[in-house]
Amino acid sequence: MSVLVVGSIALDTVKTPVEEHADLLGGSASYAALAASYFSQVRLVGIVGDDFPESEFEFWKSRKIDIDGVERAKGKTFRWSGEYAWDLNTRETRSVALNVFETFKPTLPQSYRQTDFVLLANIAPALQSHVLKQMEKPRFVVADTMDLWIETTRADLDALLPHVDLLILNDSEAREMTKETSLIKAGRKIRSLGPKYVAIKKGEHGALLFGDENEFFSCGAYPLEDIHDPTGAGDTFAGGMAGYLAGTTKNVHFNDLRKAMIYGSVLASFCVEKFSLERLRDLSIEEIEKRYEMFKLMSQFEFAT
Amino acid sequence: MSVLVVGSIALDTVKTPVEEHADLLGGSASYAALAASYFSQVRLVGIVGDDFPESEFEFWKSRKIDIDGVERAKGKTFRWSGEYAWDLNTRETRSVALNVFETFKPTLPQSYRQTDFVLLANIAPALQSHVLKQMEKPRFVVADTMDLWIETTRADLDALLPHVDLLILNDSEAREMTKETSLIKAGRKIRSLGPKYVAIKKGEHGALLFGDENEFFSCGAYPLEDIHDPTGAGDTFAGGMAGYLAGTTKNVHFNDLRKAMIYGSVLASFCVEKFSLERLRDLSIEEIEKRYEMFKLMSQFEFAT
Repeated sequence: MSVLVVGSIALDTVKTPVEEHADLLGGSASYAALAASYFSQVRLVGIVGDDFPESEFEFWKSRKIDIDGVERAKGKTFRWSGEYAWDLNTRETRSVALNVFETFKPTLPQSYRQTDFVLLANIAPALQSHVLKQMEKPRFVVADTMDLWIETTRADLDALLPHVDLLILNDSEAREMTKETSLIKAGRKIRSLGPKYVAIKKGEHGALLFGDENEFFSCGAYPLEDIHDPTGAGDTFAGGMAGYLAGTTKNVHFNDLRKAMIYGSVLASFCVEKFSLERLRDLSIEEIEKRYEMFKLMSQFEFAT
Repeated sequence: MSVLVVGSIALDTVKTPVEEHADLLGGSASYAALAASYFSQVRLVGIVGDDFPESEFEFWKSRKIDIDGVERAKGKTFRWSGEYAWDLNTRETRSVALNVFETFKPTLPQSYRQTDFVLLANIAPALQSHVLKQMEKPRFVVADTMDLWIETTRADLDALLPHVDLLILNDSEAREMTKETSLIKAGRKIRSLGPKYVAIKKGEHGALLFGDENEFFSCGAYPLEDIHDPTGAGDTFAGGMAGYLAGTTKNVHFNDLRKAMIYGSVLASFCVEKFSLERLRDLSIEEIEKRYEMFKLMSQFEFAT
C-alpha cells in the first residue's frame, strides 16, 4: 500500500562545530518521504519555489515517489538555517524564511485521496488537519509535531489529535504538552487526548511506544560513535515508521508498531551519519536489514538453549 | 555460589518534595547486599557504630546474609542526609558525617577470602582495592563507582580498574571519566582502562552494556509512573547484577550479563517505589519474575509466527 506524506520542503543551511553547508535539501516532508520510500510507495505533498533544483524532482522520481502533489510556485523555496552546539544536542535557529510556504494550502490531487496511510509530517497542525480532511477514509494516520505548535497553536493541535492513530513527538515535547516529568505518565496522558498510539523519541536514548494499558514498548538507539548532522532525524524516524507500516501491514496492531519503531530508528541512524539527507539517498535494503539485525542482537537477553 | 559485598552502611535522612524520613537504613552495601540476597548467598563487609539498630542484624540473618564481616565499632554509624529536587532527578547532600566509617579498613574473615564473586559497592577506590587484595582468586569482580572518586581519587580508581571484570557507573560519570559526550565512545574507552565489561546506568532511560567489539546490549527502564525515593537505586542495580551472576553462573559470558542487567533493573525498579530499602525487604521471587517477564514483553519486537 501507499503512504501520503505532507510536510515542509526546504533548502537548509546547517552549521555544526565542524562543518557548514548551504542550500541542502531539507524540510520534514523531504526526510520523511525518502525514508518511507524504502518500504512503500510514497505520494508527496508540498510546495517549492522556482529556485528549487530540478535534479531533486528527478531524484524523487528515481525513488518512485509520486510528485503530483508537489506544487511549484513563483518565488523562493522555504529556507531554514540553524547552528548546533558542540555536543550536537541543542541547536539554534539562525534564520527562517517561509517564502512560498507561507501561503501553502494544498488541494490534493484526486489520485491521492484514497491513500491508505497518511503521514502528517511536522508542519502547523491546522495545515495537517486541512490535508487530512481531504482524505477518504485513510486506514492509519500518523502525525508528527513539535514544541512550536504545542506552544503557539495548541487548540489546533488538540483538534487534530482525535483523528490521529499514532502521534510522534520527542521527550521534552511530551513533557511540555502534559506538564508531567514522568515520560510514562506523559505518554499515557497524551493517549487520553485522542491518539490510539503515542511514540516518544528520546534521541540517543531510543524511543518509547504506548498503546492501551498493557501495550508498552521500549527500544534503544543504534549505537553510533559519530554524528555529523542530527537535522531531520525525527522526520526520518516518522517516515521510516509510516513507510514500514504502509508497506507491510493492512490492519495495524501493536506488534507491527514495535517493528516500525525499529525500522524508524534504523533509518534515523543512517540520517545523522551525513549532512542533510545525503546518507539516505542510496541506502540498500541489505544495509537497512543489517542494522535491524543489530537491533535484535543488542536488545535480546534470552536465547534458545 | 556466594558474592562478597563491601561498601558503606549508613543511617540516612532523606527529603523529597513530598516526604522526609530520618534514620533510614542506607549505604551502598546495604542496598547491594539485600538486592543480591534474592539470587545468591551474600557475605557482607562493612562497619557500623554502637547506635546501629540490632534489628537490622536480625533482618540480615533472616535474609541469610553472612554478617561475620560487619564490624561493630565504638562511636556513631556513618550518616548521610540529602534532599531531592522536585523532579527527583537531582539531589543535594545536606550533611555527611563519616563517623566510624572514617577509619574503616577491613580485614576480611578467613571464611570470606575464597568467595567466587566480589561486588565492590560504591566506596573509595583505595578501600575497594584494599579488600580485593585480600581475596584469593575471585572468579568475577564487579565494581561500582561515582563522580566523587573520579574527581578526587582518580589515580586510585585507575589502579583498581585492571582488576575489575565489570565496572558500573552512570552516564554523567562515564562522560566525566572519558571527556566523551557520546556514551558509545565513553563505554568503549572505559574498557580500554581495564574492565572487561562496562555497564552505564541511565536512570529512566535504562542501561547500556559494553563487552568486546561485537558485544553491546541496551535495555530500557521498567515503566514506573511514580518514584518515591531514588536513593540506592544504583547500588541496588549493582547488587542485583552481582547477585544474579553469583547465583546462576560459573563462568560469566556476555549473555549472562544481559540477563543480569535486566535483574539489576528489576530490583532497582522496586527500590525506588518506597523510601530507603523498605520495598526490597520482603519481595517475592514471583514479583521479581513478573517484572522480568514485563521486560521481555516491552523489549521484544519479533514474535514467532
